[in-house]
Amino acid sequence: MAIISFSNMTAKRLKSMSGSAIRNLLKQAGKKNFIALSGGYPDPACFPVSIIEELRRKIKTKYGNDIFQYGKTEGLTDLLDILPSFLKRSNRRVVATPDTIAITCGSQQALTIIALMFINPGDLIAVESPTYLGALQAFNAFQPRYVEILTDKDGMIPGSLENIIKKYPAIKFIYAIPTFQNPTGRVIPLRRRIEIAKIIVKYNKLLVEDDPYSEVRYEGDHLPSICSLAPANTIHLFTFSKTLVPDVRVGGMVASEEIKNTAVLIKQGLDLFTSNYNQALVSEYLRGDYLEGHLKKIIKIYRPRKTCMFESIKKYFPDIFEVTNSQGGMFVWVSQLTDAKKYKLNIEELVEKTLAKNVGFVPGFPFYANQKNALFSMRLNFTNQSEESIEKGIEIIGSAIHKLLK
Amino acid sequence: MAIISFSNMTAKRLKSMSGSAIRNLLKQAGKKNFIALSGGYPDPACFPVSIIEELRRKIKTKYGNDIFQYGKTEGLTDLLDILPSFLKRSNRRVVATPDTIAITCGSQQALTIIALMFINPGDLIAVESPTYLGALQAFNAFQPRYVEILTDKDGMIPGSLENIIKKYPAIKFIYAIPTFQNPTGRVIPLRRRIEIAKIIVKYNKLLVEDDPYSEVRYEGDHLPSICSLAPANTIHLFTFSKTLVPDVRVGGMVASEEIKNTAVLIKQGLDLFTSNYNQALVSEYLRGDYLEGHLKKIIKIYRPRKTCMFESIKKYFPDIFEVTNSQGGMFVWVSQLTDAKKYKLNIEELVEKTLAKNVGFVPGFPFYANQKNALFSMRLNFTNQSEESIEKGIEIIGSAIHKLLK
Repeated sequence: MAIISFSNMTAKRLKSMSGSAIRNLLKQAGKKNFIALSGGYPDPACFPVSIIEELRRKIKTKYGNDIFQYGKTEGLTDLLDILPSFLKRSNRRVVATPDTIAITCGSQQALTIIALMFINPGDLIAVESPTYLGALQAFNAFQPRYVEILTDKDGMIPGSLENIIKKYPAIKFIYAIPTFQNPTGRVIPLRRRIEIAKIIVKYNKLLVEDDPYSEVRYEGDHLPSICSLAPANTIHLFTFSKTLVPDVRVGGMVASEEIKNTAVLIKQGLDLFTSNYNQALVSEYLRGDYLEGHLKKIIKIYRPRKTCMFESIKKYFPDIFEVTNSQGGMFVWVSQLTDAKKYKLNIEELVEKTLAKNVGFVPGFPFYANQKNALFSMRLNFTNQSEESIEKGIEIIGSAIHKLLK
Repeated sequence: MAIISFSNMTAKRLKSMSGSAIRNLLKQAGKKNFIALSGGYPDPACFPVSIIEELRRKIKTKYGNDIFQYGKTEGLTDLLDILPSFLKRSNRRVVATPDTIAITCGSQQALTIIALMFINPGDLIAVESPTYLGALQAFNAFQPRYVEILTDKDGMIPGSLENIIKKYPAIKFIYAIPTFQNPTGRVIPLRRRIEIAKIIVKYNKLLVEDDPYSEVRYEGDHLPSICSLAPANTIHLFTFSKTLVPDVRVGGMVASEEIKNTAVLIKQGLDLFTSNYNQALVSEYLRGDYLEGHLKKIIKIYRPRKTCMFESIKKYFPDIFEVTNSQGGMFVWVSQLTDAKKYKLNIEELVEKTLAKNVGFVPGFPFYANQKNALFSMRLNFTNQSEESIEKGIEIIGSAIHKLLK
């Protein structure tokens, strides 16, 4: 039988796509006694399973059989109606109406929809350096070119953003995660948020604000989203993966009605609609006022894990790194200080050594749009391990680093 | 505040995308006393809700909290393990292993993944004339050009397929729904399936076989899928929207490992993974042997509705149409006989007249890749209305046609 020559047939865009470097690491995570600091995973022990059981009973009474029928691409009306009150919480302060929200299958699908909407092959988009790997994957399918915005311990540097917009006026949009960024855990402070908002309004640019973590804050006060400061210039993303469970696959975007209508048109071709039942789970979760209690519970569990990770790093790692003491979210970022450049460290070697000792973390380079700009760095997740395991894992990584330095 | 000039910013591909012509019609369907023959909807009264309750209890015991965690892009292992036995049922006879299956968010997402994998702007793809509107929507985002394969009452004409392949050797793939096609309800008979399989093997072409309906057969014997006759040249799609519930959003594709691996890579960027909980619902549904009983139940309900619709059309429509007496699936297709061309009928006028009388159906033209080839035609759904309503709806449409002919 003839064999189809697959590689001659595929679309050109496949050349710009590659699998996540994290995936192989995550495969290790299932091993017994393995300390996985690699995934961006919440702790399943914290999942509100009994709340979900309660929500299922409510859905059965409220919706009957109809909840299992084909649904509207826009989203379940009851969810769209309750979301504005969720979005205006002090961690977002986003003003939305049911007409300016599109429901997506997690916020990952929102990234694909935005890419489909705006990116022609070769178009420029600006991203933080480093940025969320999954966003790069979603965008790469549409063959953009990236410009990297410089960051420091306070996240995106507004001056760098302005320089980039001046130098590349054709950039289609800026992609940013202002709060508890993935991978760095950094927060852009209020003053910078105001500056960034002013810049995007001044130059009439569109900013895609990804915000999966802002509800999960351990310290400090909530900050207004960039969307709340420059609504006409922002597409704001949200998800219930961290505040309910990842499996619910419900997220969405807030945007102008024009962008939202186009998003719905695109989503229709992608997968018709997002499960109404899962949207009803989120709707009843918000209506039943379960969210605040659940947030308190997970924050109580995750906060000491974060502190434990930060302090263990200070204790076990050599003093040649900058370490984020994240105020929220899921990650601590460790990167080599520029004035410690004389210490030549090989990240692949470190990954190998620690994997051999049953500890996993994610190297930093895949999070850079242009990997040649990558510093020696690592992303460490603290939400899915006990404090005991976190300290043990960090001790093992620290000891491996010390050996590499010898 | 500056307003972003949205239309100057969007990607070129948006020009080739438009909303489904069906959507506005479906909006009417919620009205009281409206007889909707328009949607491709199963009857919610037939949904196996008590089975789903039972499956939920099983999932709780079997998986605990872990089912709500992030999942693998490939799909839930337990589902991948049980699917080969589902796929080899006599309505498909598809040979698969867990390594040759990729799970998608309904089969609609599989269409998008295939489009992303193969279509460069301007590439040729061959589709049946008419074909599934949702497939055209999924493909359009990637700017293909279409070649239409001629069909008759037995579906795709193999000679037309061969002529097209000879004339356009560059076509990337052929898209077809061989069994109970949407919109026509037609079935390609075994002899033609064998011919089609021979042609795609002879010319080394790839065929995308969409099969959402073959389990739901009212009359006649199951036929082998084209995938079973030419496996190396076929991507075979399946879904549980019709056999469990649409809201479960679980479908998938069977393909070579190379294509499957590429599909997984693409899906990762699109939405990371399909809900594991919903995959577990399907897995337990198949493992618990609920499928055969449920199929018997819905076939018993849908078969007389189909017969009622076919006979009502014969009774109330003028004798200038070809009507599919579907052996399965959800649709009856009515199209003007070519030797009745002297009767000039306007489909938009008919839609308007019947909507005014609270009856909805879908005009045929949106199902043609090149709408200038469209005959005066209509797609009528019989699964979501009682026999009484079907007869009443058809009588109203028939009477409107008679008036138009005067």
